[in-house]
Amino acid sequence: MRRTEISAPESLQSVAGKAQCSREFPSMNTAWREVLNMRRNTRMNTVIERTGFDPAQDADNGNRFLTGNGYMGVRGTIGEAGVQQMTAVNLAGIHHQKGQGWEEPLNAPNPLYVAVKGVSLPENADRLTSHRLALDIADGAFTRESTFKADAGEITIRQERFCAMERVHLLAQRVTITATHDSVVTIAFGVDENVWDIHGPHYEALTLTESDGVVALTGETDDHQRVCTALRCSCTDGEITHGGVRTAQIALRAGQPWQLDEVAAVYTTSDGDAPEASAMEAAENAPAYDALREEQRTAWAALWQKARVTIEGDARAEFAVNYSMYHLMSIAPRHRAALSVAARGLSGQTYKGAIFWDTEMFMLDFYLACMPEVARHCLEYRVQTLPGALDKAKSYGYAGAFYAWESVEGGKDACTDYNVTDVFTGRPMRTFFRDTQVHISAAVVYGLRKYTQYTGDDSLLQSGGARVVLECARFYMSLISKRILSDTYDLLDVMGPDEYHEHVKNNAYTNEMARMTLDYAVEVCRKYLPETDEAELMHFADAAKHLKHQAPDPKTGLIEQFDGYFKLENVLVPEVRSRLIDPREYWGGAYGVAAQTQVIKQADVIALLYMLGQYPADIIAANYDYYEPRTEHGSSLSACMYALCACAIGRPAAAYPLFLKSAEADIVGGGKQWAGLVYIGGTHPAAAGGAYMVLLYGFLGLRFEDGKPTLHPRLPEGWKKVQMQVHWQGKDWLLSAEEGQQA
Amino acid sequence: MRRTEISAPESLQSVAGKAQCSREFPSMNTAWREVLNMRRNTRMNTVIERTGFDPAQDADNGNRFLTGNGYMGVRGTIGEAGVQQMTAVNLAGIHHQKGQGWEEPLNAPNPLYVAVKGVSLPENADRLTSHRLALDIADGAFTRESTFKADAGEITIRQERFCAMERVHLLAQRVTITATHDSVVTIAFGVDENVWDIHGPHYEALTLTESDGVVALTGETDDHQRVCTALRCSCTDGEITHGGVRTAQIALRAGQPWQLDEVAAVYTTSDGDAPEASAMEAAENAPAYDALREEQRTAWAALWQKARVTIEGDARAEFAVNYSMYHLMSIAPRHRAALSVAARGLSGQTYKGAIFWDTEMFMLDFYLACMPEVARHCLEYRVQTLPGALDKAKSYGYAGAFYAWESVEGGKDACTDYNVTDVFTGRPMRTFFRDTQVHISAAVVYGLRKYTQYTGDDSLLQSGGARVVLECARFYMSLISKRILSDTYDLLDVMGPDEYHEHVKNNAYTNEMARMTLDYAVEVCRKYLPETDEAELMHFADAAKHLKHQAPDPKTGLIEQFDGYFKLENVLVPEVRSRLIDPREYWGGAYGVAAQTQVIKQADVIALLYMLGQYPADIIAANYDYYEPRTEHGSSLSACMYALCACAIGRPAAAYPLFLKSAEADIVGGGKQWAGLVYIGGTHPAAAGGAYMVLLYGFLGLRFEDGKPTLHPRLPEGWKKVQMQVHWQGKDWLLSAEEGQQA
Repeated sequence: MRRTEISAPESLQSVAGKAQCSREFPSMNTAWREVLNMRRNTRMNTVIERTGFDPAQDADNGNRFLTGNGYMGVRGTIGEAGVQQMTAVNLAGIHHQKGQGWEEPLNAPNPLYVAVKGVSLPENADRLTSHRLALDIADGAFTRESTFKADAGEITIRQERFCAMERVHLLAQRVTITATHDSVVTIAFGVDENVWDIHGPHYEALTLTESDGVVALTGETDDHQRVCTALRCSCTDGEITHGGVRTAQIALRAGQPWQLDEVAAVYTTSDGDAPEASAMEAAENAPAYDALREEQRTAWAALWQKARVTIEGDARAEFAVNYSMYHLMSIAPRHRAALSVAARGLSGQTYKGAIFWDTEMFMLDFYLACMPEVARHCLEYRVQTLPGALDKAKSYGYAGAFYAWESVEGGKDACTDYNVTDVFTGRPMRTFFRDTQVHISAAVVYGLRKYTQYTGDDSLLQSGGARVVLECARFYMSLISKRILSDTYDLLDVMGPDEYHEHVKNNAYTNEMARMTLDYAVEVCRKYLPETDEAELMHFADAAKHLKHQAPDPKTGLIEQFDGYFKLENVLVPEVRSRLIDPREYWGGAYGVAAQTQVIKQADVIALLYMLGQYPADIIAANYDYYEPRTEHGSSLSACMYALCACAIGRPAAAYPLFLKSAEADIVGGGKQWAGLVYIGGTHPAAAGGAYMVLLYGFLGLRFEDGKPTLHPRLPEGWKKVQMQVHWQGKDWLLSAEEGQQA
Repeated sequence: MRRTEISAPESLQSVAGKAQCSREFPSMNTAWREVLNMRRNTRMNTVIERTGFDPAQDADNGNRFLTGNGYMGVRGTIGEAGVQQMTAVNLAGIHHQKGQGWEEPLNAPNPLYVAVKGVSLPENADRLTSHRLALDIADGAFTRESTFKADAGEITIRQERFCAMERVHLLAQRVTITATHDSVVTIAFGVDENVWDIHGPHYEALTLTESDGVVALTGETDDHQRVCTALRCSCTDGEITHGGVRTAQIALRAGQPWQLDEVAAVYTTSDGDAPEASAMEAAENAPAYDALREEQRTAWAALWQKARVTIEGDARAEFAVNYSMYHLMSIAPRHRAALSVAARGLSGQTYKGAIFWDTEMFMLDFYLACMPEVARHCLEYRVQTLPGALDKAKSYGYAGAFYAWESVEGGKDACTDYNVTDVFTGRPMRTFFRDTQVHISAAVVYGLRKYTQYTGDDSLLQSGGARVVLECARFYMSLISKRILSDTYDLLDVMGPDEYHEHVKNNAYTNEMARMTLDYAVEVCRKYLPETDEAELMHFADAAKHLKHQAPDPKTGLIEQFDGYFKLENVLVPEVRSRLIDPREYWGGAYGVAAQTQVIKQADVIALLYMLGQYPADIIAANYDYYEPRTEHGSSLSACMYALCACAIGRPAAAYPLFLKSAEADIVGGGKQWAGLVYIGGTHPAAAGGAYMVLLYGFLGLRFEDGKPTLHPRLPEGWKKVQMQVHWQGKDWLLSAEEGQQA
């Protein structure tokens, strides 16, 4: 077995077939910069585009062309799009609950509304001659260009916009209108008073303020949260006709572009007491469009310098994985400590803008490798929201910390008891995500443990993290039970990652994660919380020892997903799918087509095998072969786990399509957009993170051995060379693997 | 408080307002016989009838006019009725499973088929001038009389039939046809080859045998069980045209009845190896119709002498309770030891002809009081089927005896995992009756304990019963769990009597019944199984002590039905009913209208309060007031429990309608005939038994104190005097209560 593919940059020219030791990569290394330039010279594609107008693609395009900066996300809809097309300026870390509806993040009033009368979509689609949407992941700029037949020629509308990566309250847009003939058009632009909400409306009122050429629209919720969008425009013709929208007549000269520059600022009461003043001041004092645009290029270039991946021989995979990282960077909370990433990123209010286990289990690896400060922010969020987790546990009669399944402000659980709507009756279905997916607390511990191990930095544990670990262990201690006549401990009535099976006993994944939590708590408490009663730690150790282990069957090597799983109907996915009556019906719940079968929603045992990394290859292979044809991959968290296990058993060819499925989740679109009758569309940052994990830990086979990173590459066919950079233990490392260097 | 209303017969003339001591009633007491005669002289009604023809009533009439003798039950359908009308000669204690269908009892070929061409229902309903069905509960004879317009006048067809109470293999029918004018009619009569099956057909083939004027039809199943119906007729004209049916032309003379006497015999391989020979011999040698009819009168008179109840002042209630006892006597297994009573009696194959907890908990009191040998047979059945209960426990990984929820031969559980069909999707719904209604084993113990305490006869315990108690205790021991950090023991994931709530924790009823079992096992094992390890008994006692007690709330007195019940939506029955989309939809399961509310199917806490009789009146009152408006009474086992508790707290007026609901369940008909799309109609012997319990332990307030029965009457308004007889501790006791003698 050949391995060790960590290459210092100067070795890039001579790695093929050679085993080399890893070396520290100097920060801002010149050689690596050259490599990036070299790659750029080969015209590696950084642009994703779609041409032609299809309203059915509005939702997917909104995700596909998303721009963001961690503070806000702007869906990739066109200027004249509104509520119907799910246009949104989605905000991180600010939530509101309207009445008894689902709590969800607030959308700011959209300042980039722009519509030209008579050449607007979808109304004038019949006059469209060309239409193109594009996103350059190199600098996070969205472009829209549409040409319409007009009375005496053609009119072309171009928008270019971005969320400023360095000044996160700002977003900017340049609109260019060009006609082939002299004409006068009516243009409406500015802050749209129509705000898309799923469980709203959240604003009781919207207030318009105008001052020094800045127009601001402030929404206020019934609990007095305020969100202000202020807009400074290069054009102040015409007048405000509705909301913060100005309507003007503009004279176009044949062939001469008419240009509108807009710079907007968003502030909320989460940022301070006077969001209007802050937003208006920020809009007024912001640099001009061109300056912001240049700043944006520089900011993204710096990000890409650390993140960029090159895959010689597979342009599709190369783009897909870089595109995945683009999304993860666009939604990364760089600007604020103790803020985390929502399961749908900043692509809207679906999943309530809440933080799921996705962050710790699927996104953390990328942030650790490329944006360690973001990894820290995400985990600080868990430390800071410990009181919410303690409250949740208490409300169920448990001890310790039961983290929210869908965490919103203060760690409150936004997950309701009814998450799915029955397509046959229209009734809400009682679901058990909130109360029985107890593996969430272990995910938080897993994240803290990974952060500490990966970075070598234990300051998170010292500053509250250890307490989180202790309280999560206490939570499991209060849950674990035993038959009075048995020595085996059980975790009863849980739901594992596979949500299609409710009320299961001793879910293999959950039990092992709970055991990890208990063991880690003993270690962490002794070191960081020496005042902890040793007797309690002995209880932890005892529970970890006796908690039921779903051991691989000695003959088959199979691990039972939960007690009794193998007694369920043994059918594969196509059979179960064929039993659907309504394509939107929920596969899980009590009576869903999968519920009484062995068909599962997503990686469960397979997630365990990868996540805890303590099983030999033959066990992984046996379980991979058994569970894969029984897995719907109905969650975007599934394919990457299978791909990682496939790599672990030397099957990169099997991993490859699963890797692409993850990496292209938001490129392809059209994923599962409905759970029963509830819309769950949006971007898939966990799939993006999963794709990154497959590349790094699967195809490159990164491990940390003997105090340094080593590679055990298992490259898919056709991949000539992979290069990427990771941050580890405070230093940057350049990784390189070439065809032929298999583990 | 005045009490003690047990009266010796000679005191009957002078009880009003007087407290008298109970005295033993001499067997075959003359005075009591006179009382019965006296009552008969007042022309107490013993006949139930329905006039007019309504095919929609076929199912209800089949139950309403059921005749039976414990060996078989003949549904109250008319002679020409067949499969469509659910005509059946239903057999006790013989089951068959067709393929993967539900196992169910066999129906014998019906020998009492008779149809006259041109004057047959429903085909000739337009010519009907009168139609009457009647049943005399005094002697168990069914009568049908229909008059049709014929070409030149009228033709009347009369059937009278009964199942012979003393010769349980026999059933007899007299058909009389009278025309107002001379005419020739075509009559078909004999053994119908069409056998009604729900999950059949069960017979692979039916074989016709004829010998010495006896016609026999034998059905054979694929597992070689054989059922033979042999018929001897007074008419041998015409010829066999199909099955065992003879078709003949008969000449009717104006005004002169033409008469056909039929005596049939049914034998099966459960009775011996040669059912055909036995049936044919029995049919051939049976007495003539008139002699059998007289024997029948005598047999029933003897039964009524012990069972008859008189209620002066309330003829409706009097008939209803006697009618209830008629049903219980008609299906009572007098003829065979170790045979029990099915939940739908002998009214057909619904509920698979299986034995439920109904027998021990709702019917046993009547049998103990009036037919103690039947009570014994029912409990012998449980002793004999212990191996089946041990097997069932083992199959679930439990120890001890887990009795079948729906017990068929050998104690096998006929209950499947799918008992309800979803009305919206047509899919079977996974139910949890079989695997989580663990209170069934306690019901068996409860029955054994009651039998022993009531009769004073411990021979059942000595001959296997003690072993049953021990194994049931072991079963609960293997189920009981505890949180590792708690001292309280739990029974998790159970279903209580209220089947609308699945997967509940610490159901109050189940926990107390399990505790009773454990405590009783300690007592019984020390006495009858001295070889039992004392350490095991100490474990039983420990578990009984620590098992969670759903104690009455100190402030409200309320007992929580299970952990978390009071957190469910607090609505009443009408609100929940109003949410139904389809009247046939199942209220329970995961998503039924009741599932997430406090609305329950049937008495649960209230059943506990009555059954264990250890709670003070204020606690019963508080729980009665709380639970009653939240109870659908969707089971025929519910109303009687509420009525008993209402009596216990001095509210006979509240009890009265619930008593009538139980007593008239099969008179009124129209009860719940569907669970989703599954037909569950039939008679309701548990409701009948429950009505008897309300009368005896509720209205009369029978208790056994200081070694003798005492009454604590709480009579409904208008009841002047109640008289009945019970057998207790080997002796007969005459009970009498009069208006004004309230407890």
